[in-house]
Amino acid sequence: MTVKIGLVGTGTVGGGCLDIIAAHKEDFKRHYGIDLEVVRVCSRNPEQAVAHGVREIFTDDFHEILDDPSIQIVIELIGGTTFAKEVVMGALAAGKNVVTANKALMATSGDEILDLAEKMHREVAFEAAVGGGIPIIDPLKHSLFANQITSVLGIVNGTTNYMLTRMAETGATYDDALLEAQDKGFAEADPTADVDGLDAAAKIAILASIAFNSRVTLDQVPAEGIRLIAPVDFQVARDMGYVIKLLAVGNSLPEGVDVRVHPTMVPVDHPLAGVNGVFNAIYVVGDAVGETMFLGEGAGSGPAASAVMGDVLEVARHVQADIAPWASRATYDDLPLVPMDELSMSYYIRFVVEDRSGVLASTAEVFARHGVSISSMVQRGRGEGASADLVYITHTALERDIQQALSEIEELEGVLVDNSEPTVIRILS
Amino acid sequence: MTVKIGLVGTGTVGGGCLDIIAAHKEDFKRHYGIDLEVVRVCSRNPEQAVAHGVREIFTDDFHEILDDPSIQIVIELIGGTTFAKEVVMGALAAGKNVVTANKALMATSGDEILDLAEKMHREVAFEAAVGGGIPIIDPLKHSLFANQITSVLGIVNGTTNYMLTRMAETGATYDDALLEAQDKGFAEADPTADVDGLDAAAKIAILASIAFNSRVTLDQVPAEGIRLIAPVDFQVARDMGYVIKLLAVGNSLPEGVDVRVHPTMVPVDHPLAGVNGVFNAIYVVGDAVGETMFLGEGAGSGPAASAVMGDVLEVARHVQADIAPWASRATYDDLPLVPMDELSMSYYIRFVVEDRSGVLASTAEVFARHGVSISSMVQRGRGEGASADLVYITHTALERDIQQALSEIEELEGVLVDNSEPTVIRILS
Repeated sequence: MTVKIGLVGTGTVGGGCLDIIAAHKEDFKRHYGIDLEVVRVCSRNPEQAVAHGVREIFTDDFHEILDDPSIQIVIELIGGTTFAKEVVMGALAAGKNVVTANKALMATSGDEILDLAEKMHREVAFEAAVGGGIPIIDPLKHSLFANQITSVLGIVNGTTNYMLTRMAETGATYDDALLEAQDKGFAEADPTADVDGLDAAAKIAILASIAFNSRVTLDQVPAEGIRLIAPVDFQVARDMGYVIKLLAVGNSLPEGVDVRVHPTMVPVDHPLAGVNGVFNAIYVVGDAVGETMFLGEGAGSGPAASAVMGDVLEVARHVQADIAPWASRATYDDLPLVPMDELSMSYYIRFVVEDRSGVLASTAEVFARHGVSISSMVQRGRGEGASADLVYITHTALERDIQQALSEIEELEGVLVDNSEPTVIRILS
Repeated sequence: MTVKIGLVGTGTVGGGCLDIIAAHKEDFKRHYGIDLEVVRVCSRNPEQAVAHGVREIFTDDFHEILDDPSIQIVIELIGGTTFAKEVVMGALAAGKNVVTANKALMATSGDEILDLAEKMHREVAFEAAVGGGIPIIDPLKHSLFANQITSVLGIVNGTTNYMLTRMAETGATYDDALLEAQDKGFAEADPTADVDGLDAAAKIAILASIAFNSRVTLDQVPAEGIRLIAPVDFQVARDMGYVIKLLAVGNSLPEGVDVRVHPTMVPVDHPLAGVNGVFNAIYVVGDAVGETMFLGEGAGSGPAASAVMGDVLEVARHVQADIAPWASRATYDDLPLVPMDELSMSYYIRFVVEDRSGVLASTAEVFARHGVSISSMVQRGRGEGASADLVYITHTALERDIQQALSEIEELEGVLVDNSEPTVIRILS
C-alpha cells in the first residue's frame, strides 16, 4: 500500500526531504516495505520546488493538500505560527497525520494540536523541532520511558554555540562573532530569536513537557541570551575551569518543573563542555539510566530532513499497518513551574566599573546585605581609560537575592559605567 | 489490560528491572496506560530474588515460565548462549514476546531467533545488548531510518575504556589498570572477553547488522584487544594529538561491510576522544543526518535495566493495543564482508628492540620492500638494559602489506626482544 504525502514548504528542510525521498524511496520499500509517494507539494516559491524536480504536483495553495482525501500525511515545513497552524490544524481536522519541524508552533500551541490529534485519532510527530537531526524526542518517549527523568540540559541553538565557540577560540567580541556567523550562513540578518535565547526556550519547553510528563509553553520559559558576553568572560571562565555555553535547562524538582535558558558556566569535564561549533547536544539524566547525551548537527538541510523523514517513515508504517496512534500525549501530570526567583545556584557576575577606590567596597556591601556570600572576586583593568572589569563569583545564592542586589548595585555611582549592564552567567554545579 | 511478565535471571540487571517496576509501576499506568505485572521470576539464586521482594512467584525452573499461558513477555537476563537460547527460543515457540540484554546470543544466533519471532508473529527486543542504557538500537531502527548509515564507531566496552582512561591519566601499566578495574568491580576475575575485544565484537556485529541492513555475526568480526598497550603508547599518542581507545568499527563501503575491533588512535578533537571511564558512546554517520553520537553509562544495574524496561514497556504497549510486530528484522541485504586484509589505513606500530645500530635499518627495509611508506619514526630508550621502543607511524597502507611486513620483522634478529609482540594501533583518519 502506497502512503500518500503532501508537503508544505520547500525551503532548506523541505528540499532536503524531497532529496531523501528521491535517493532512498526504493530502499524504504525494499528494507521496510514502506512505499511513500509525494502527491502534492505547496510552496510560495515555485523555483525552489522545480529545483527539486517538482512540477505537475506543485501548488501554491495549501488547501489543495488539505482538501485532497488521498493524502494521509502532511509535512509542514513553512515555520512560524500563523499559516503553519492553519496547515497543521487543518490537516488534523481533515483526518490526516502531521509531521512538523515547527518548534515555535509546538511550544506555543502544542496542547491544542495534540488535543485535536487525539480527538481525530491521528498522529503528530515533531522530532525535527529540537536538535535538528539528533534523535531525542523519540528516545525520551520510548527507549528512556522507564526512567523518571530528573534533568534535561541542552545546547540546542547552533548559531549561539558557533558564536560562543569562536569567541572562546579566537578571543573575538560578540559583534565580530555575530558577523562571522552571519557571513557563514549560521546566523540570520535579524539574529534576535537565536542570540536572545528564544529559539532555545521553545525547544526546552518541548523537551521539558515530554521528559517530565507535564506541560510547559514558550511563554513560561525565562530566557536570557548572549549579548552581554565579552572576551574577558572567557578568560576568567578558562582560569576557573569552565566553558561558557548557552544552556537550555530543565529540571524536575520536588517543588515542580524548573525551566530556563541562559548563558552558563559549564565545568570543562562535563560532557556538554566539548560540544562546539554548530553541534547541538542534549544531556539527559534519568533515575535508572544515569547520565546520557545525544549529540549531532543541530541545523542544516540534511540533519533536519533526516529527523522529518524518520517521523514520516514511522507514521507511514503505522498508516500501512493500520496502527491506532498511541496517544501522542500521554496523560500529563499538571506540575507547577518553579519561579526562577526561588532557585538557588552559584553566579558569575561582571560589572564594568570605574577603576577607583570605594567601588569594590560599595558593591561588596550590597551583596553582603542581601545575604549573598562571595566565593571569589577578581578585578581587571580594561586598558581603556579608568574603567575595569569587576567579577564576582558567589557561593550558592537565591536568585531573588541576586536580582535585588543587582538592582541596587545598578544605582551605585561608579558601577556600570557607560550605561553598561551587568553580565550574569549562572554556574552549573 | 494487564500485561503479564516472566523474568528469568535475577542478577544485577534483573534486580534493577524488579526495582524499576516496584518504583514506577503506578507511573507507567498513569502516564502511558501500561499495566505491568510480574507473575513469575526464575533464578538459580533464591536469595537474590528474595532481596528484591520475590517470594510466591519464585521458581528455579524456567519451564514454568515458558509453560504459563498467561505470560506475554519473557525477559531473559541469564546471559550466555546455552540456557539463554533455550529460554528465548522456547518463549517464542510458546507464542511469547522476548526482551533480552544478551549480546552474545544475539550476535551468534540472532538470525535464527529473529526468524522464529517473525514466524510466530512475536517481538524480540534487545536494546540493552549494546551500550547499556544508551538508546542506540531504537534510534537506528526508527529516528535514523531515513538515512543510509555509512559508519558506526563505538566505545562499547566499559571495562577497557576505564582501563585505557586510567593508563592515559596516571601512566599506569596494563597490569596495574586491570587490577584497579577488578578492584572497583569494573572487570571480572577472568577479563578475557573484555580485554581481548570479544564483548565489543559481539556488540558491533549487532550494530552493523541493524545500521547496514545486512547480517553480521560474532565470528565474522576480527578482534584485537588491549593487552599489548603500554604507557609509552599513550605518551607518543599525546605528542601526536591522539588518544587511544578500543574502538568497535563498522563501515559501509562500496565493496561491502567492514567490521572490526581493535585499539585505535582517535584524534583528540573527535567526539569519541572525550568519552572516558566507564562511559560508552556510539558515533553514527548517516548520509542525511551527518555526525551523531550517543553517550551514556555502558554497564551497571540501572542503565541496563533502563534499556530492558524501555523495551518491555514498548512491547507491552504493542501487546495491549494488539499491534502486530513490525518485522523485527526488516528485509536484509546480503552484503559481503570486506576482509580486513583489503583495508587501507595508517598504522602506529611499536617494537621492543635491541638498542643497537642496524635494527632500525633492517626494520625500515622490510616496510619499504612491502610498499609501506613511513610517515614518522621515533625510538626511545626503555631504561632497562639495552632495549628501546621503536615506533613507526605509516602513511596509508594495505593491511595485508602491514601483516606481511610484521611477520618478516618478527624473524629479524634484535627486534622484538624477550619474545615481545609488536603493538599495532590503527589510526582513525
